[in-house]
Amino acid sequence: MPGPVQSIERAAAILRLLARGSGRLGVGEIAASLGLAKGTTHGILRTLQGVGFVEQDKSSGKYQLGATLLHLGTSYLDVNELRSRAINWADALAARSGEAVWIGTLLEGKVLIVHHVFRPDDSLQSLDVGALLPLHASALGKVLLAYDTQAAAELREAELAPLTRRTLVTPAALRRELTKVRDHGYATEIEESTLGQASIAAPIRGYGGLVVGAISITGAVDRVCPTTGKPDPTLADAVQNAAQMISRDLGAGRW
Amino acid sequence: MPGPVQSIERAAAILRLLARGSGRLGVGEIAASLGLAKGTTHGILRTLQGVGFVEQDKSSGKYQLGATLLHLGTSYLDVNELRSRAINWADALAARSGEAVWIGTLLEGKVLIVHHVFRPDDSLQSLDVGALLPLHASALGKVLLAYDTQAAAELREAELAPLTRRTLVTPAALRRELTKVRDHGYATEIEESTLGQASIAAPIRGYGGLVVGAISITGAVDRVCPTTGKPDPTLADAVQNAAQMISRDLGAGRW
Repeated sequence: MPGPVQSIERAAAILRLLARGSGRLGVGEIAASLGLAKGTTHGILRTLQGVGFVEQDKSSGKYQLGATLLHLGTSYLDVNELRSRAINWADALAARSGEAVWIGTLLEGKVLIVHHVFRPDDSLQSLDVGALLPLHASALGKVLLAYDTQAAAELREAELAPLTRRTLVTPAALRRELTKVRDHGYATEIEESTLGQASIAAPIRGYGGLVVGAISITGAVDRVCPTTGKPDPTLADAVQNAAQMISRDLGAGRW
Repeated sequence: MPGPVQSIERAAAILRLLARGSGRLGVGEIAASLGLAKGTTHGILRTLQGVGFVEQDKSSGKYQLGATLLHLGTSYLDVNELRSRAINWADALAARSGEAVWIGTLLEGKVLIVHHVFRPDDSLQSLDVGALLPLHASALGKVLLAYDTQAAAELREAELAPLTRRTLVTPAALRRELTKVRDHGYATEIEESTLGQASIAAPIRGYGGLVVGAISITGAVDRVCPTTGKPDPTLADAVQNAAQMISRDLGAGRW
């Protein structure tokens, strides 16, 4: 069995690097970051530019991600089965709860948002599809960690960064929280990522009962958790119910 | 100067292939489509899977696009200057016109939608960011063609596919239309892509006055073009005005 193709791995590393930080880097900065020769880096960048995966800023000569990636990313959503099965249930959950709904899945130690239904009111909201959330500071992430022992084991203490003063930042606190998630069948996150906001999430299971994603509602803490530290039981039921309906559609059967 | 890196070009071709049609293909189908040996194709697919750019369906063994591409695509939007400069003006145009607003740019003979503001009402609408529109059958596309002689020259007659009975399908008809666009400073599209719908688009210019994108409104034909064949002058003004404001923010100066 042949090994991975080195130039493709290097090209992917460059694209990931450009997806971080300011998003614009010169060939020297990229070469230095990845420990590659400048000539090699330049050859890969020119190829990536030829296929539309990177663009070069005319005035600065720096490189940034290219438009073709947007089309590929959207095409990914079209074939994502979790998302396509979840769309109608997510709409119904937003209507029933009056809150914003997210569907998330695990991607490289983060939660990737694959679907977002705006809170059904007139407020200005921005679409979060494609964004990455920290596992330890989101209700979606806690669900994904609670049912994926490998992801939980891989999370290092260094990664438990505080986003607010309520974020769980010790492995012991997070471990206790994940036990609670498994006991209740849902996760809550109360001002642990944004002050004033709380979330409730429940697991979505695929074929064979494996957890393949999670669905959550997010809203003002006084609506989602009117009693200190406890989610509104009607909202928690609604989230769990939506998760079960999507799981059924994904062929999870009863578990 | 070294040539492009062949394995990266092949990897990009596989990703583009997976973005078309059903979105799921076996290694044999991919190899045959691209004229590659099955072993070569398999090595590239395994590498792409390792970096999260493709995923393999467990039950069928077929390949599909991977979640990392969604994140890269969203990151592209974050650095896209046209989009970031246009967001506020697009919101204002949607509020003023009462119609849906799109911002588009040229990508490989199509219009790539980089921003979409929903029509400000309660109707169910789906987000079109990342979608590709045909150049000849959209108001955005006509603007991009009118100000890009290379793109217009590259458009072959075979590509002028009819979407409705009103679609312009001959090079002569399209040429006359593009002259009109340059004369008026805006483009209209009336039931040429969807029956009952009409659009108005105007050019967005970047540094030096070069057209880098277009902004459009789309809505019911009796609102957007109340007089047969003619756009509502107030709406056409509003679209042109938004395009000029974005152009100014992009450093186009006066032209």
